[in-house]
Amino acid sequence: MRIWKKHADIYEIIKRVDDFLRESLIANQQVLNDAINDLLNAGGKRLRPAMVLLAGRFGRYDENKLIPLSAAIEIMHMATLVHDDVIDESDLRRGRPTTRSRWGNQVAVLTGDFLFTKAFSLITQNVSQKNMHRLSSVIKSICEGEVDQFQSRYTADVSVIRYLKRISRKTAVLFSLSCQVGAAESNCRRETIRLLRKFGHDFGMAFQITDDLLDFSGNEEEMGKPSYSDFLEGVYTLPIIYTLRNEKYRDKLVPYIGREDLTRDEVKEVGRLAEESGGLKKSRQLALRYLERCHESLKHLPDNPAKGALKELVEELIERRH
Amino acid sequence: MRIWKKHADIYEIIKRVDDFLRESLIANQQVLNDAINDLLNAGGKRLRPAMVLLAGRFGRYDENKLIPLSAAIEIMHMATLVHDDVIDESDLRRGRPTTRSRWGNQVAVLTGDFLFTKAFSLITQNVSQKNMHRLSSVIKSICEGEVDQFQSRYTADVSVIRYLKRISRKTAVLFSLSCQVGAAESNCRRETIRLLRKFGHDFGMAFQITDDLLDFSGNEEEMGKPSYSDFLEGVYTLPIIYTLRNEKYRDKLVPYIGREDLTRDEVKEVGRLAEESGGLKKSRQLALRYLERCHESLKHLPDNPAKGALKELVEELIERRH
Repeated sequence: MRIWKKHADIYEIIKRVDDFLRESLIANQQVLNDAINDLLNAGGKRLRPAMVLLAGRFGRYDENKLIPLSAAIEIMHMATLVHDDVIDESDLRRGRPTTRSRWGNQVAVLTGDFLFTKAFSLITQNVSQKNMHRLSSVIKSICEGEVDQFQSRYTADVSVIRYLKRISRKTAVLFSLSCQVGAAESNCRRETIRLLRKFGHDFGMAFQITDDLLDFSGNEEEMGKPSYSDFLEGVYTLPIIYTLRNEKYRDKLVPYIGREDLTRDEVKEVGRLAEESGGLKKSRQLALRYLERCHESLKHLPDNPAKGALKELVEELIERRH
Repeated sequence: MRIWKKHADIYEIIKRVDDFLRESLIANQQVLNDAINDLLNAGGKRLRPAMVLLAGRFGRYDENKLIPLSAAIEIMHMATLVHDDVIDESDLRRGRPTTRSRWGNQVAVLTGDFLFTKAFSLITQNVSQKNMHRLSSVIKSICEGEVDQFQSRYTADVSVIRYLKRISRKTAVLFSLSCQVGAAESNCRRETIRLLRKFGHDFGMAFQITDDLLDFSGNEEEMGKPSYSDFLEGVYTLPIIYTLRNEKYRDKLVPYIGREDLTRDEVKEVGRLAEESGGLKKSRQLALRYLERCHESLKHLPDNPAKGALKELVEELIERRH
């Protein structure tokens, strides 16, 4: 939540979302409470709730309606993370032990299910039927994105198009929906809803590409060291796809593809190839292009403090990349 | 679905529910389709959809409304089974390989999530907001029942009350809800809804106790051999709880409690103790008492063919026990 400190008013609302999350997620069982508290304390940025609330500012903003809605979206997001870590057999997320590594796959499956049901319950109480149906399609789409990623592990034939489709399902649709329902539930004009939805989608795309890049370059929270965890798990993201498309580098990279037994040195060599071939640079450029599209959408939206905050989010994402 | 052949009209509707299930559960990914087809072909009895539809016959029965609703409940039930098998590390269910044993835990988690989202999507399209909220509390309750079962594995201090509370959450609430929403969405009178909800609850309790008994006595589908799988997994059900309460047998059973390394002969001895101590008999009696309560509720409901079918379901459950 550090990133919100610059924006005092958003920071206050996000704190209220956080309080609401803590209250709604109290379970009857100790193990669930422990696992959930751990997730809540992991310091998520609450980007999706922020999108809901900021989008709401373009219409008749009603916090009593938007806080439960934004919390439901965050809970859904948390549920997918917990299950993803089971599927990917991940032990760390952002440098912290995952639910599965701390309490086992069984508790992780149950925790994810509990979070899904909680999100569902909040949604049925607070959202219009139309938006509810949209939300349910989005969870389905996230699930399909995950299956696609799981199924294409360790294969070299993922195209850029397929990668983009996958991250759209896996990440961008939820950002897009956050903006859309925030605006729609605040009775924004149709064109405003459309622009915000588009903004959310492009932001989500840039966000996921950046996230995939950080696996190669490392980030602050993990002391700047690249973890290469995607590559090690056979998830070949954009930098790798670009490197494989580069005739000069394809043959050098191929020996590392499809292998589950890479040494630390070998995976470092993969990182070097992605850098040298321009795979990282091209990925950065594509992320930038999505961020430019975000600015384009913002340009057509009415000026207000929420627009300023969205602009700053885009700037922060650009900075995160370097 | 064999059990429905006696009831030609229910058989026809259940076939339509099955067709609807197959149509709604088509996924974009092959592995999901394979896993789901396997589940659909496993020959579930579709008891919950039948409850929805039969309850609907007590009011203004609208098949177009009730079929999607009953399918959603069945899908939710399927989702919980798939995840349960991950949690319990079960390789067989009713004598067939489970999703996790055939495709791995990862696909099983994804399949369960996909089913949840599908159920959610059907519910948001077809159910009134009030019943939707009821449905979401029920999934939460199922989830809590599972956590309770998971947490009390291999411990001897489960009381009868706690067992009943657990199976109520895990099983009876969904039967109860099936009857309730079937009746409510068909605009039944308040007293009719109440009686059907109660019928569903008592039926679900008897159903689960019977299911737990079958683990000790074996059933047709598994060639009559007891599997003792609950006991082996540390899930101590009613017959064991009764045996532990029996002063003469407690000390004989205790050495087998809390152990994950039992041999086939040892677990057979556990079965013998449950029989000899009267634990099985007392469990059967409790199931019967719930079935008597079912008859009691039916007595106060108006006479119609649906009531006849519910009565027969109760009779069949009694027979299943012997």
